[in-house]
This record gives sequence, C-alpha cells and structure tokens, in this order.
Amino acid sequence: MTFTPTDYLPYDFANRRHIGPSPSEMSDMLQALGVASLDELIDQTVPEGIRQGSALGWGKAMSEREVLHHMREVAGKNKVLTSLIGQGYYGTVTPPAIQRNILENPAWYTAYTPYQPEISQGRLEALLNFQTMVCDLTGLDVANASLLDEATACAEAMTMAQRVAKSKAKAFFVDQDCHPQNIAVVQTRAAPLGIEVIVGDPKDMDAETVFGALFQYPGTYGHVRDFTPQIEALHAAKAIGVVSADPLSLTLLKEPGAMGADIAVGSTQRFGVPVGFGGPHAAYMACRDAYKRSMPGRIVGVSVDSHGNKAYRLSLQTREQHIRREKATSNVCTAQALLAVMAGFYAVFHGPDGLKAVAQRIHRKTARLAEGLKQAGFAVQPAAFFDTITVEVGPLQAAVMKSAVDEGINLRAVGTDRIGISLDERTRPATTEAVWRAFGITREDKDYTPHYHMPEKLIRESSYLTHPIFHMNRAETEMMRYMRRLADRDLALDRAMIPLGSCTMKLNSAAEMMPVSWPEFSLPHPFIPADQAAGFHEMIDDLSAKLCQITGYDQISMQPNSGAQGEYAGLLTIAAWHKAQGQGHRNVCLIPMSAHGTNPASAQMVGWKVVPVKSAENGDIDLEDFKAKAEAHADTLAGCMITYPSTHGVFEETVTEVCRITHEHGGQVYIDGANMNAMVGISRPGDLGGDVSHLNLHKTFCIPHGGGGPGMGPIGVKSHLMPHLPGHPHTGGQEGPVSAAPYGSPSLLPISWAYCLMMGGEGLTQATKVAILNANYIAKRLEGAYDVLFTGRNGRIAHECIIDTRPLDDVAGVTVEDIAKRLMDCGFHAPTMSWPVAGTLMIEPTESETKAELDRFCDAMLAIRQEVRDIEEGRMPRDVNPLKMAPHTMEDLVREWDRPYSREQACFPPGAFRVDKYWPPVNRVDNVHGDRNLVCICPPMEDYAEAAE
Amino acid sequence: MTFTPTDYLPYDFANRRHIGPSPSEMSDMLQALGVASLDELIDQTVPEGIRQGSALGWGKAMSEREVLHHMREVAGKNKVLTSLIGQGYYGTVTPPAIQRNILENPAWYTAYTPYQPEISQGRLEALLNFQTMVCDLTGLDVANASLLDEATACAEAMTMAQRVAKSKAKAFFVDQDCHPQNIAVVQTRAAPLGIEVIVGDPKDMDAETVFGALFQYPGTYGHVRDFTPQIEALHAAKAIGVVSADPLSLTLLKEPGAMGADIAVGSTQRFGVPVGFGGPHAAYMACRDAYKRSMPGRIVGVSVDSHGNKAYRLSLQTREQHIRREKATSNVCTAQALLAVMAGFYAVFHGPDGLKAVAQRIHRKTARLAEGLKQAGFAVQPAAFFDTITVEVGPLQAAVMKSAVDEGINLRAVGTDRIGISLDERTRPATTEAVWRAFGITREDKDYTPHYHMPEKLIRESSYLTHPIFHMNRAETEMMRYMRRLADRDLALDRAMIPLGSCTMKLNSAAEMMPVSWPEFSLPHPFIPADQAAGFHEMIDDLSAKLCQITGYDQISMQPNSGAQGEYAGLLTIAAWHKAQGQGHRNVCLIPMSAHGTNPASAQMVGWKVVPVKSAENGDIDLEDFKAKAEAHADTLAGCMITYPSTHGVFEETVTEVCRITHEHGGQVYIDGANMNAMVGISRPGDLGGDVSHLNLHKTFCIPHGGGGPGMGPIGVKSHLMPHLPGHPHTGGQEGPVSAAPYGSPSLLPISWAYCLMMGGEGLTQATKVAILNANYIAKRLEGAYDVLFTGRNGRIAHECIIDTRPLDDVAGVTVEDIAKRLMDCGFHAPTMSWPVAGTLMIEPTESETKAELDRFCDAMLAIRQEVRDIEEGRMPRDVNPLKMAPHTMEDLVREWDRPYSREQACFPPGAFRVDKYWPPVNRVDNVHGDRNLVCICPPMEDYAEAAE
Repeated sequence: MTFTPTDYLPYDFANRRHIGPSPSEMSDMLQALGVASLDELIDQTVPEGIRQGSALGWGKAMSEREVLHHMREVAGKNKVLTSLIGQGYYGTVTPPAIQRNILENPAWYTAYTPYQPEISQGRLEALLNFQTMVCDLTGLDVANASLLDEATACAEAMTMAQRVAKSKAKAFFVDQDCHPQNIAVVQTRAAPLGIEVIVGDPKDMDAETVFGALFQYPGTYGHVRDFTPQIEALHAAKAIGVVSADPLSLTLLKEPGAMGADIAVGSTQRFGVPVGFGGPHAAYMACRDAYKRSMPGRIVGVSVDSHGNKAYRLSLQTREQHIRREKATSNVCTAQALLAVMAGFYAVFHGPDGLKAVAQRIHRKTARLAEGLKQAGFAVQPAAFFDTITVEVGPLQAAVMKSAVDEGINLRAVGTDRIGISLDERTRPATTEAVWRAFGITREDKDYTPHYHMPEKLIRESSYLTHPIFHMNRAETEMMRYMRRLADRDLALDRAMIPLGSCTMKLNSAAEMMPVSWPEFSLPHPFIPADQAAGFHEMIDDLSAKLCQITGYDQISMQPNSGAQGEYAGLLTIAAWHKAQGQGHRNVCLIPMSAHGTNPASAQMVGWKVVPVKSAENGDIDLEDFKAKAEAHADTLAGCMITYPSTHGVFEETVTEVCRITHEHGGQVYIDGANMNAMVGISRPGDLGGDVSHLNLHKTFCIPHGGGGPGMGPIGVKSHLMPHLPGHPHTGGQEGPVSAAPYGSPSLLPISWAYCLMMGGEGLTQATKVAILNANYIAKRLEGAYDVLFTGRNGRIAHECIIDTRPLDDVAGVTVEDIAKRLMDCGFHAPTMSWPVAGTLMIEPTESETKAELDRFCDAMLAIRQEVRDIEEGRMPRDVNPLKMAPHTMEDLVREWDRPYSREQACFPPGAFRVDKYWPPVNRVDNVHGDRNLVCICPPMEDYAEAAE
Repeated sequence: MTFTPTDYLPYDFANRRHIGPSPSEMSDMLQALGVASLDELIDQTVPEGIRQGSALGWGKAMSEREVLHHMREVAGKNKVLTSLIGQGYYGTVTPPAIQRNILENPAWYTAYTPYQPEISQGRLEALLNFQTMVCDLTGLDVANASLLDEATACAEAMTMAQRVAKSKAKAFFVDQDCHPQNIAVVQTRAAPLGIEVIVGDPKDMDAETVFGALFQYPGTYGHVRDFTPQIEALHAAKAIGVVSADPLSLTLLKEPGAMGADIAVGSTQRFGVPVGFGGPHAAYMACRDAYKRSMPGRIVGVSVDSHGNKAYRLSLQTREQHIRREKATSNVCTAQALLAVMAGFYAVFHGPDGLKAVAQRIHRKTARLAEGLKQAGFAVQPAAFFDTITVEVGPLQAAVMKSAVDEGINLRAVGTDRIGISLDERTRPATTEAVWRAFGITREDKDYTPHYHMPEKLIRESSYLTHPIFHMNRAETEMMRYMRRLADRDLALDRAMIPLGSCTMKLNSAAEMMPVSWPEFSLPHPFIPADQAAGFHEMIDDLSAKLCQITGYDQISMQPNSGAQGEYAGLLTIAAWHKAQGQGHRNVCLIPMSAHGTNPASAQMVGWKVVPVKSAENGDIDLEDFKAKAEAHADTLAGCMITYPSTHGVFEETVTEVCRITHEHGGQVYIDGANMNAMVGISRPGDLGGDVSHLNLHKTFCIPHGGGGPGMGPIGVKSHLMPHLPGHPHTGGQEGPVSAAPYGSPSLLPISWAYCLMMGGEGLTQATKVAILNANYIAKRLEGAYDVLFTGRNGRIAHECIIDTRPLDDVAGVTVEDIAKRLMDCGFHAPTMSWPVAGTLMIEPTESETKAELDRFCDAMLAIRQEVRDIEEGRMPRDVNPLKMAPHTMEDLVREWDRPYSREQACFPPGAFRVDKYWPPVNRVDNVHGDRNLVCICPPMEDYAEAAE
C-alpha cells in the first residue's frame, strides 16, 4: 500500500529547535503585520540595494546527531598529549560537580551580564567570591570580576598605570621574563598610544624613565624573584609597580601586595578551567584601594536594597557603559564571568588548605623532577622556582623534544638550546618518569623530602581565603546545593526571554554545547605543534570559510576574544595597512553619535581622533554631516566605524553611500557586527563596502553569554587587509597579537561551528528573517501603547526596536528604570535601557523566541502601560505604586501590607507565571549607597548564616 | 627550606566530597552523643559478635580524575558497532536537550518516588505525559507509569490476566514469535505459580484451555499479524488477550486496543533512551478501564488540592505499599521513572507527526534493505513487516555474521540458517550499504517509493497524541523552559536532605554519573558478542568481586534490575537448590512482622507459604516464636527472610541465632540488603549466616533514585547456591532469567563501580560509621520532643530511627501526615511515613548530609513539636493551624489571610530558607477525590494555558 510520507522533518534543527515560532504561529504573526509572507516582510524591511546576490550554501544542514558524530571525528584529529609547556597555561582538574552544575548548566551559561542586580544575585555572589579570592591571594585591596586573558590584563595594567601614575615618563618597563605573549600584547597596545616599551632585566631598570613596570612572578622560565627593590624604586619615582602573578603560586609565595605592588594581574585558568587550546579563561586584576576608580573591568560590590537588606551589584558602572566616550582608554567591557565563577568555585571547593596542598604537591614534584635531571648531569635553572624549570640541552633540543612527544609529553623549546618544563595539578609519577625518559634517564619517581626551593624571604607569611565561604563544608551535597541556590536566584534564558537590544540572547542549544566538554577540545595547550591540533585547524578553517561566505570578506582572524577586542583588532589592521601605504599619519575616525560605546573607545586605543557624526531626525546617519566631516578631514581620514543595521534598529538605505564617501577620502570602513543577526543570509557587510567587521559569535552564533562572558569577536577583512591581521609569537605574522592565545578562545568555536552546520545556509537565512519578524511583531503589538522611535521607509524595523518611555516620565513620573524593575515582577529581564537613546528601551527578541513568549512579554508591557495610566489618571499615587515599588519579593508578601494596590497585583501582573513564579531575591538595589560605600569583597560571616533562621 | 606538607588531601573523595560532616562537625556531634570517638559509638551500636573480621581492602582509593581516566580506558574495551540485532532493543537518538536537562540534571535524577505529591508535581506531570502517550499509542484506557522491562511486563501481564480472567483455566498461551527473553521470563515466573506456559503458533491456540495469551507485535522475526481472531476467541472463552507491542510501530500499525486486546505491554526504550547494554529502560503497561484496579505498578492520576486546584498524585496507592501482604502476587514496586520521563519527553519533542515520520523512515529503509536482498536472490521473510526482516543464509550464517562485524555491524543469528536484521532511527544509507556488503551485495541505497509493507487492514486508522502537550511548540527554548519549570516544582536531593528511612538517599556524585553518558557504555546492545563487551565484563567482574568482599558472599548476579527483583531471584535460587537436593517440597518461609512489604510478596511469587514471626516488645524478632515456627514447619521449611539491621533500625544481637535455627531446620536464610548502608565494612551478611542477599545499588551504592527508578538489585550467594543463579537465553545457565537482559540495567553499574573505586574499602567503612553517627545525632537532638521507638542495648540506633508521632495525634489531633506536609513548608521531604509502624516517621539521614543540614532538619522537627504543643495547650485551634493547613503555597500568601497564625509563621518556619525558599506548587492533595475520580491521562487543554494569566 502506497502512503504519503509525513512532511514533518524530525531532525530539522533550524525549524524544529532553533527558530521559535512554529509555522502556524508565524502565519498568525504575519497576518498581524498585514503581510502575506515572510519574504514580503523582508522586502519591506531590507532595502533592495543592500540585499546579497546569492543564497548561502554549503550543502545540506546536518541533524544534531550527524553534527555530533562529525565533530567527534574532527575532535579525534586533535592529539591529546600531556603538555608541560607552561607559559601561562597549565593542566588543571575541573571538579566534576563544577563541570556538571556550572559549565554544563544552562542556568549559569545562558545568563546575561548582571546589569540588573535584583535578578542576578546568584552570579554576583559567585563573582564576589572570585574577587575576594583574588584580593586575598594577591594581597591587594580591590579586584575586578575578571578580564579577558593574562596578556590583555597586562596591557590594561599598563594603561591603568599611566592613568594613575604621578610620574610623567612616557615609557613602560617590561620584565624580559614575562611570558612572550604578555610582552607581545603589551607592545601591540603600547605602540598606538605612544608608550615606549622597554623590555629588560628588572635589575637594570631605571625607575626614573618609566611611569610603570611589569614583572612576571614566577618568571616564564621559572625564576622566583623578589621585586620589592624595583617597586620601591618605582614608588620613589612616582611610578607604578605591576606584578603578573600565577595565583596558585601565591599560596606559597609572598604576595605581590607584600612586595609593594600597586596592581597585580594574572590568569586563573589553572583554578579548574580547562586549557581549551587557549581559552576562554578568566584573567584577574587587583589593585590598591587608592586606584580602584581607575581600574578597568566590572567590579561587583555590596550594597543594600530598599528594605536595607544586603544586595550585590556591579559597582562604579559609570566607568563602563557611561564612560565619556571620547576619553576612553580601555574598551574592555566584556569579562569572563562564567570562567571566573568556575575559578571562584574551585577556590570554594578546595579552600586555602586545599589550594596550598595542590601547590605544595606541584612544587615537590617539580623539585623531584629537577633533582633527577641534575643527578643525571643536566644543568637545571633556576635554583628558586615554583613549578617551572629550564634545562640546558645544547644542540639536542629537537631530539629531546621529539623524544618527549614519543612519550606523550609536550615540552617547551626555549631559545635553541634549552627546554622548559612546567608541572601542574595533573602531573603524576608516570608523567615525571616519562619526562626523565625523554632525557634518557631511567628512574622511578618516589621518595622525596618536603623542601621549598624558594628563598626564605619569599615564602608567604600572611593568611588568605579566611572568609567563611572558603571554609564551608566541602561535601559535594553541600556544594551542589550552594550552586543550585545561587543559580535559582538568577533569571536566565532557561526560564524566560531576555529581550536585550544589541545583545542577541538566542538559544544556546544542548547539542552545540556538548563538544565543549570533550577532552579533545578542552585539554590541548595553545602552543602545541600544529600536527597535534589538526582537528582545531579543520574546524577553524571550515568555520572561517563559512563566516567569509556570510560576511563577504576574504579572511577571518579568530584571535579577538571579545567583540571589543575585535573592533580594536580591526582598527589596528586598518592602521597597519595605512602605514604600509605610506599613510601612517591618517588618524581621524568618523563615528555616528549612535554608535556602540566601544567604538570610540577602540578608536582611542589605536591612537585615533574620534570625530562624531550627527544623526538625522529619523535616527539615520546625517549624510550631509558625514560628507562634510569626511571632506574636512580628507587628508587625515583613517576611516569610519558604523553599525549595520544601525543601532537604531533600522536598515539605513545610505550605507553604501557612507562607505563610498569614506573610501573616496582615503578612509577604510569598519562595520560593527553587533547587529549581524539581522543580516546573515540576506546582506553582507563586505558587499556594502565594509573593509573590516567583527562578528560577535556570542551574539549571532550561539556562544552563550555566560553571565557576562566569555565572548568571541573574530574579524573578517577584505583581501588587501589580510597581511595586516593580528599575528602571534607562536604562529608568526607581521603584526603583533591582541590576545594571549593565537585563536582567542578556541574551545568555544565548536558552538558556533555546530550552529552553522545544523542550520545550513538556508536555516541561517530563515533565522535572520524570523528575527526581523519577531521584532516587528513586538513593535506591532506595542503600537499605541508605546512609540517606536525609529523605523525604516515602510514603517518596519530590523531585528530590534526602540520604544520611547520618556512620555511616561512626563505624565506619571515613571522612569525607564521603574519599567525595567516592574518587568522582573512579570518574570522578564528588562530590554536594554537608555541606549542608544536615554529614556528608552531597546527590545531584541531574536528568532529563538516563540510567539507565546513574545505575547507574554507584550502582555506584560501593555499591562505596565496600563499601570502608568492609573498613575497618570490619578487612580494610583505617584510615589507608592506597583512600578515604584518594583520588584516585589517574598518579603513584601509576608510583611504587613499597606500599599494602595493588592498583593495579587504586586506579584502576579500579566506575564508572571502563577505556579512557576520567579521571585527576585532582593528588592530594588540602592546604587548610590553601593558606590559611596564600596565593598568589593565578601561581606562578613553573619550574612551567610541564612540557612536555618 | 623544609616545610610541613599540609595534611589536607585535596583529592580524597570519601572524606572531602561524599561524607557530609567535616572533621570538626563530626567532633561536635560525637561530643553531643557523649562518646570520645566514632569507633566508640560504633562499638556501642554494633554488637561485637556480628562485626566482620578484617577490613575491606582493594588498594588505595582513587581520585575523581583517576577514576574517570581508568573508566575511559575500560570503556574503550567495549567495541561500539552498529547493532541491528533488534529483539526488543533498538538504536535511538536521544535529543541532546533531553540528555542534558533530564538525564544529566540532578534536579531530575536525584528525586525520590513521588509519594509526597505536593513536592513532586513536576515529575508527576512528566509521568502523566508518559501514561497519556502509552494509552494513545496502544489504544487502551489506562496506563501505568512504567514497569521494569518488557519481559517482566509480559510476566506481570500474565499474572494480571490470571487475576482478572473469568476463565478458570490454568494455562497461559505465549506466541512463539515473542522475543526469546520475554518467553523465558514468563516461564520463570509461571513455574512457581503453577501456571502452565504453552508456547506455540497463535493460529494453533486453543482459547478454551488458557486464562490468557500473549502475542508479540511485530513478532521477533518481523511478522506483522492481526491478532483480532485470537483475541475474539479468548474473549469467548472468558480469557484475556495481551499484546506486547513496539510503541513506535504503533504510529503506523493498528493499535492493540483496536484488535480487542485487554492488556498491552512493551518497551519504550527506542523513545530516546540509550540501549546501554540492556537497560535501564521504561517498560509500559496499559489495559482496559475495567481492569485498572488490578494493574501492577504506579499510576499517576489527577486530583485536586485543598483549594480545588488541579493536582497530580499517585492513584490507587493502596495497591502498592499497603497491599495485603500475604496475598501479593506482584512485587513490582520500583518503576523506571527517569526513563519514562525521558520517553515521555521524546514524544513531546517529536509529537505525533514526528514519531510517525521516524517510523515511516525506518519502515522505508527496511523495505529498501529487503528489496536489495531479494534482488540479489535471497529469500527474505516476512512479507508484512515494520522494521525487522529475516534472511535465509543456510550454512553461511557464520560467514555473513562475521562479514557484517567486519563492516561494523552486528546482525542477529536466528536458528542455524537465518539472519535477523532490525533497522532503527539511527540507520543511515551507509548502514544499509554495509549490510548489503556483508551479504556480498554492492549497491547504493537510494531511490524508493513510499509503500507500506503491511496488510492494509493493519494500517492504523485512529489518531494519537492529540493532547495539546504533544502539540506544543517544539523549539528547544520552549522545551528547555518546560523541563526547567517541571524540575523546579519538585524538591529533590539537589536542594535538601531527603531523610527517608530504608531508602538511603545519599549523594549521587557528578563524577559517578558522567560515564553513564559515554557512548561506550550507553550504545551497546545486550546481545552483542562477548568480545565486544570486554569493558562491561571487566567492570562487572571487578564490581562483583568488591561486592563479594563487602557481603561475604561468593558470587554476584547482576541480573535483577530492582530490589524486589533481587528478592525474587534470591528466593528462586534457594528454591532451585532445594529441588536439586531432592527437597523441592519445602515451601514455608518465615518472615518477621516488621519485614519490607516486598518480602512476603516475593515469597508468594515463588509459590511459598508465608509464616509471620512476631516481634518482641523492643522490636526485635521474637526468638521464641521464631524457633517455635521453625520447629513446627521443620519438614517444609524453605527458609526465612530477615532484614539486617532490622527495619526497626536496630542491630539485633540474635541474628546469628536466627540463622542457625533456620539452617538447623533445613531452611536457607535470605537477608534483605535494604539496610546494607549500616553494614558495609563493619559486618557482612554472609558471615552472619545468610545464604543470599540482594543489594540495592540505588540505595547503598549511589545509583540515583531517578524520581522513582531506575534501580539495581543484584544478589550475592554462598557457593552452594551459585549453580542456581538466574540464567539467560543469551548467556546460558541452568535456571531461567528474571529480567529481560542478562545483566539487568548494566549502564548504571559505572555509578556504583566509580563509588567503590573512589571510596576505597576504608572510605566505604567510614561512610557506614558516619551514617550511624548521623542517625544517632538526629535521635539525640530530637530526644525529649519525640520518642524513639526502638534502640539497641546501649540506647543506640543503627543508620535510621523511628520516631513515634502517635502521641501528638492523641493530644492535638496532629497526624503523621500533617507533620509530613508541614515539613514541606520547612523545605524538607518527609521521612518514611507509617512504616514499619503506623503513626511513626522513620528517619534515615545517610552519611552524605552535613551537620548543618541535620541541624536544619532537627530545628524544623523541634519547631513542629512546639506547634503541636500550641494546639495541645489551647493557643492554636485544632482545625485551623499551621500543621493542618500545610503545606502553604504562594497562593495562600497572596489571598486574604484569616488564619490564627501569621503569614510569616506559615511560610517561614524554622528550617525554611529565607531567600531560597522552596514553594510547593499546590496545597494538600485530596487523595480520596483522586481515587474516586480516576483520571490517568493528561487533563484538558485549558489547564495548560498557565503562561500568561
């Protein structure tokens, strides 16, 4: 009997799993918008002139199972040896409970940056643990909640030192024993700022000639040196001392603070975060109290809520989002929150005794290794070390290196005649014996005396991790419950839509996340020989080819490990090209007023002068002004930075004209890729006239936000710029690196790659169209209640819309913040607030949200509008109303109730789930109090005795 | 400089992760108990005469990382081929979102059986989805929430048929085309009950001679037959028709209900549950409405709570825990909840169209495979099939089988001259081509017409999965949030202690769980050649050796896949031994009154007569009564079943005497292993005189409870019983099997094995001691407020204690149920209620709970006692008080409040977390309403429109 096969494709990932609206929902939405088809909507929205010529295509989309199978094969091409290369990357043991309950748990990895503190108390506490750990280990007063990597942290320390030093010197000293990539990134960052970098032996440093100095501790070849004299000299010269320190070594070694250091930086990778071929990991930065307001990055602080209860928040936020744009000297606004959370939990899991035990084991093993080598006649340096030694091998370097590889071990080639060896938490007796065999020594690894191979004055005397959180019961039962309690306090994408404009909070599917944990992707060291990383290279090449096809560029650099890093790398590439053309003087950058705040910051960082360009009434770039400024600066025009579709959420029709004008006047065009989610498959920045763009793989290509990082910001360039892409000491290239590792944070790439493979070109294009549909549907449903600020020619918006809440302030005293907080009662994270226009909300639903969820959100927004009307029309007072008192907590419910509205209205407004209600754990957080009383480490014990009250 | 190494062992899993109390907590607890050391407490608690002679030892405990490394090596010894063996086990694709969010999520896997419905609404809804799916697919009225495996479900169907049939015949007919293991388990179960099993061709069946018949659909060799005529004949003879059906095939084939079947059973394994070398998977059972009260297993039903809101619960529970013990004919009280949840979600993920599409693809592939074989001249059977065909190969069977293995494919040898092939969801064109090559055919797998190779009258006409839950939006975003919402409604071990007496809810660590998901453990088919399962065998052998050492037995059988199955298997082994001794007439079993309810049920099932033995005043076995009964039945004594330490939580000193008496009178001793958590490392049942015990690996050895299954109940026996352990058609042996697969649910074994390896003998012993410490600490803290019912000679209890709440009923009308519900307000799952003594609570904390958590629980219990006193002393009315109104919900808080106690007291009693409060989603559930109005499928749509109220 013949049958009709069902037209249901069970393994169609794009339409079945990733894209939210079902076909019938989509049809209802199109009807609401008054269009006959999705394509008609796209035609109305995206001007014909900017549409791409041909469809994306790279064969059929793969199913989840096919992709996992394929990726297992590719992963299998990476050879997983034991790497003792060190140089900032060390083997570590991720506690399985952390892997399962944090790294692989959507409640943690799908969260957004904790800008809305009331719904982020869990990860704020976890990050505060991290900061407390960093302060304790470094012996400094204030720490931030992580930076991108150790090398960029060194560079940030340099620019911070310049900001705070009273010395007027223009040079920065760098210890020659810093890790090579740290030196290289510092040099990259220094050059455009006119800072001279002096690399040398610390004992030769002339403190009078520098505004600051960076020392590595322990040094890259293993030396453990006391920098107290150098730092004293620096201080005498009113300059700043920076120490880049391995935090694990600080459990045994005198802390940088005790040496007088002003700033400490380093990587917390070896605190349980897999090496992952280079990242992501959390770098740290700590400083003296006096300098805290100059410190880059996010700082979690302790404040109070409206009931006076303890509440965490991001402190000093004005330094970041509201930074005076033309004066920015840092564009680090992404952090590595998820990895900092892991590192913080690693410290909670082990406590000070545990960390010390781990460090002592490593040190003892290193001493034993050195002894074995010395007894066999090798010259081993240094005498004082923690975990790293260097062995002289003369012309036999290559032979020993190969012999080690045959034993399954990667060592580090130092110069042409030495070999570096760094041991770590994973080192076992068999490892040490294999290393000995590589050196021709047959010996058993046993029997040793506990002996510190460090100068006595460098042995740490002070205590650390004294806070009760690092002394809690370490039973996994308790740890698991602590992780769960923190997770439950936060509202992440696994419970509700996060409609953040420009942040593209879409599905991070389970299938995409799985390969991240595979040993073949998580264990390799970034500096292994290329033949051991064949799987990584295959993945990077294939993903790059797809991204080139999507963007219309000719090559991709995976090095930038955040969007802001991407911008910076892109501008550096342009600057290097100008220089190569003999146009090195070009230094003017046109940037529309509505640009992302990172744009001008990036331009500043490459030493460019930012010239703002006005917006027209409709939010578009004012073409006349653009033209006028380009002409005025024709001789010095380096380029322009634009965002497409614009940050106003509109496909501007003038984009090609803007590019043409820029090129005509000798400039290069940087198109910010933040809004690529509105373009993939329908328009290519490379075709519009862009020379460079960065892509936020954590926005458009499904890498989760991790509660505020990690991110990946690779850049695509036209062919003429290819030679000027970032290089790296390990992989070569004519320019310097911007990140510590050659491929940024490559262990995230399986996520984006899986996404592209499972969606196929067609699926990606459909996703873009549905993202636009979803945004327009919201705009339509909110019509009448709120004004949409900017629209394109046909009244359509791109993938996000800006609604104006200023009129509500005028009529009822309701601010955009009140609305944001009230949305928490409805079970939502607020849209982006007051950006790019103050007093507005920018809503981006993404394609992954269903119509039901969009409706739930719109119902909430419409109900809020009604609540405003109640105030406006006098039915509710202006001071005590559901909006001003939002968010409402369980505490409110249980207390005496004397409000002019009911408990029911307070807690169950439209949108809020009835049974599955999300409760913010605190009431509205007091920002002013927090900034005035800056407390950035864990509050005292009694605040933790919450359990059995 | 020499240093003192810290004495902290960072990788000590036993003391750092698994055992709850820290050393300092332990010392406080010992002080509270007035003993100087843990050993002193154990000496007071465990009589010297029953202590084991030497310590457990099998080398050093391994760290989490070492164990994972070792297990990867062992896993690597399993060869993962594509198995097309069929016979009840099929390749399937587990949606990654289900794997990550259910199978690997502690919120799901650490939950207990949903006996307390108010804190189990999430998994009850998930199981209701499962039941609805089963009813729809089978076309029957009522389904249960899963059974252990298909073979035991067939056996349960047989005994159920006997219960409900009006026919007085004593025989049961079994289709010869049933899977061999189904036939074998039915035969095992039938024999002791005196049921004659007639295996034959259904067309030869004489309905008059049987009380029921079992048919396989499709048959094991692939045949698709209509059993309507046979079932009509059975009905005419007042007998019962049972169909064991593959649920996936039912998306295309006429459903058993439409054939007139009274009962349907089968396995839902291929609904996304990995094969795992045989299990665990969820079997199903459905029946006509008329027979529902005779159906074994748990049935989730819909009721209302005290506010009249919809609430789920287990229906007809009296059939299970409160069954009249001496009349039991089923001992199935474990289910496969976690796997049923997965299978139910698989159906939600795919919906009816998706399932049908999957089935159609498999069918089309099978047709193409058959066509290729036929065209090459092979004789292929049957003409009508779904996914399985049988090919005649004459003497070349071995050659083709080997050739297939060389192609990476396992086929099924049928008889000596045929080969069976079953395709599945994972079959790809390359698979089919490899099969053809194994038969010497070179052919490409493409081009086919959609054609049903089934009789037209067997094509399914009715619709299924019409409920909205199977038509919800299938975007992963939505699915993930649905899974999270359900998980959040439940209170599992990842949020709080579950102090269930006799259930041993201890830590299921992340490291133990990880290997379960590895392909090498999750993909193999149970009937692969032994050389492909070398890793499994190594694990089974090593774990068995350790369990023998722990128990003092000589051999372990891993076959029983639940504790009850273990009991049954153990008694069968004894019975077989008696028979071999020419003592087959022995059929009396002495069982103390306080025994687990499963004990008498198991005895009944092997055809034994249960003779109850009295308890003495102190709860011990009444030795005089025991002796008297043993003497009275000396000629027919088969054995006794005792639990040690007793179900009263005491190490009875008379245990060896009980064993001696039993042996003296010709009986064998069965020691129930439910309380092994109080014995491991300090006492061995084999040394006490036991001949057989089962071990609940899901209690003592860390397999999670999964919300009501899976479990594993292997048995240990003394050497004389070894020849009589369960056999299996696949692996041989002189006795029949009790489970479908030779090793029960072997994909769970990595959990218990990892536990043993990480704890080491010393760690396991320490765990036992701390379990006893924790229980005694609770007893001490509750002293004065509650009476502990039974204690040992020194006033000590074993690993659990029974507290008497009957006096509270007397003085204040507060029942044990009121206390259980009030504990929910405090954030706890209640202890075991009214067992083994009505009106009591049996508390078992396990070693994994910290002192802080024990104190939180004791604080809650003491506060409850105070609340009772308030009633007792007239400060609170007897009808409306915090106990009677418990549990309290958000709904209560938000409503008008007219209670004689405050909202604060209602919702935040001692124990309850303030910020991290767990809210039961419903008020107290009405049991009577639920049983009177039995609704066991999903309620209508409007109840689901919860979102945006």
